[in-house]
Amino acid sequence: MEKRIRSSLCLPHAPVIRSYASIAGQKEGDGPMGDCFDRVEQDAYFGETTWERAESRMQADVLTRALEKGELPPAALDCIVAGDLINQCTSSTFAMRSLHVPFLGVYGACSTMAESLLLSSLLVDGGFCRNAAAVTSSHFSTAERQFRFPLSYGGQRTPTSQWTCTAAGAVVVSAEGTGVRVRGGCIGKIVDYGISDANNMGAAMAPAAADTIFRYLQDTGTAPEDYDCVVTGDLGNIGSSLLLELLRAQGVNLAVQHRDCGAMMFDEHSQDTHAGGSGCGCAASLLCGHFLPQLERGEIRRMLFAATGALLSPMSAQQGESIPCISHLVALTAEGVE
Amino acid sequence: MEKRIRSSLCLPHAPVIRSYASIAGQKEGDGPMGDCFDRVEQDAYFGETTWERAESRMQADVLTRALEKGELPPAALDCIVAGDLINQCTSSTFAMRSLHVPFLGVYGACSTMAESLLLSSLLVDGGFCRNAAAVTSSHFSTAERQFRFPLSYGGQRTPTSQWTCTAAGAVVVSAEGTGVRVRGGCIGKIVDYGISDANNMGAAMAPAAADTIFRYLQDTGTAPEDYDCVVTGDLGNIGSSLLLELLRAQGVNLAVQHRDCGAMMFDEHSQDTHAGGSGCGCAASLLCGHFLPQLERGEIRRMLFAATGALLSPMSAQQGESIPCISHLVALTAEGVE
Repeated sequence: MEKRIRSSLCLPHAPVIRSYASIAGQKEGDGPMGDCFDRVEQDAYFGETTWERAESRMQADVLTRALEKGELPPAALDCIVAGDLINQCTSSTFAMRSLHVPFLGVYGACSTMAESLLLSSLLVDGGFCRNAAAVTSSHFSTAERQFRFPLSYGGQRTPTSQWTCTAAGAVVVSAEGTGVRVRGGCIGKIVDYGISDANNMGAAMAPAAADTIFRYLQDTGTAPEDYDCVVTGDLGNIGSSLLLELLRAQGVNLAVQHRDCGAMMFDEHSQDTHAGGSGCGCAASLLCGHFLPQLERGEIRRMLFAATGALLSPMSAQQGESIPCISHLVALTAEGVE
Repeated sequence: MEKRIRSSLCLPHAPVIRSYASIAGQKEGDGPMGDCFDRVEQDAYFGETTWERAESRMQADVLTRALEKGELPPAALDCIVAGDLINQCTSSTFAMRSLHVPFLGVYGACSTMAESLLLSSLLVDGGFCRNAAAVTSSHFSTAERQFRFPLSYGGQRTPTSQWTCTAAGAVVVSAEGTGVRVRGGCIGKIVDYGISDANNMGAAMAPAAADTIFRYLQDTGTAPEDYDCVVTGDLGNIGSSLLLELLRAQGVNLAVQHRDCGAMMFDEHSQDTHAGGSGCGCAASLLCGHFLPQLERGEIRRMLFAATGALLSPMSAQQGESIPCISHLVALTAEGVE
């Protein structure tokens, strides 16, 4: 079996998703997906003294929960692949420092769940790890403080803006066992359509998702109908419409199979979240809370997971730069499905 | 051949380093290693209008140079693995956005050259990429602005502080060909000895380097005498002494084989750099400017490259957190050496 088809990857050993867990904050718990998470935490501080420590705590807790569900001690992990939105990825590194597990830090903004899951799967499929974990998180308050305004400033949000989810997800990928399998993937290319409005990231990210999904379908000779769903990370309502439009222009109709975690997370009208949810934790928590359980129960059999990231920084926005974006894709199947 | 020995990795196909390049700034060019770089740039702006754009330009240029030396077009790369110190890794993402090559962003602070080279090598060895590039950079002025004080403030530097190098390195790893080979590696664990002085990062990072080097030697049943050199990234003078001391306490004498890129980069006395050089570009540019050519010429035959990263952020320092650190290791041999 070829491991590469043009720019897409096939995983001949189809690593198994041994376990996974999700945590979400109160607002996410109050939303339409609120019942799917392993834990909904009412305290935005997660028992810590700063929001940054809260996000690290959430990330440590979600990995611990995934390990418990997989009946593995931390020492059984050959590698943790993790990242987050916060400067120098401290949510991840501070979360993982007590575990003494080999650690690969990644930065893919809100595409991190797909990047870390793809990398974990490649390390397992390549025989370099027996068990590897992919972990990420985001926190509304750490992200607002860093990327936008002090919360107490009470800035008016634009109609295109999205709401950074307080949420986290962790997936343990293993060489052995049965369950949901990682069949392939596609490493994203950086796509920049020249959008420089940091309050319209869905629009900025849609071309990256379109590029990756289109390449994967082309490379593998498959069509949207071959999947039960094709899931993007946090395009939100505006970005989702653009994605469908961009793909339609290339002859691909994704309207039936497309789901977007950002559009699913909140009730736009009652929760005042504008264009939808965002943040690494948005796609991560719905992958682990909603889609992986559906795959495990066989309610969906084949899915593509393409989280998207906007690779901007506050400084790049201040300097008037446009927003480079990326989308990594992971192909998942239910047990027994080729 | 086993791909894992406890927590270390062996690469059965021993991917080849097809080409590499280095760029350094004027101060680095004026130092004792100044003759080894492919290019020394006098203009701190690299022809751009901001330091951030300068760093991106440097990173794009160093990869272009490495591709030219390897006679490869960008399209021959199946993946670029890159990262840097700047918030949201924009030096890397902005540098690579025009290339349309699959991109994996990593964050390992100053360990990035080792992390990206190890990951590239694993992707090639595992059959997922034919050619992959590992790239990183640092820039004195972008780092000072972000991590310390505005340059015009003219803050007094402590004796233990290090000087962030303006420098970059790129390595192209290939499945086929002859040359220097990547034989193995070790993914770092996060180590935190509780040091919270952000002006003494060499001391903070030394335990992480000691942990990784000790694990690799133990796992592979080798000793320092089996290598011509064991190279750390940017421990500087103070961190280097600590590394030797920590390893001596574990029965390993690294004094003869140890080299540290941070200690090599500047003339401490005439260049006023205090404890040495630092930054992702420090280890990257000396790997590509000094050590890989030595391996290629057979002047050294076996070497371990263990770059180190301090995983702090300005906010974590302000919040009084200690500094988690990491060191990833790559084992390299000259052509024809097992």
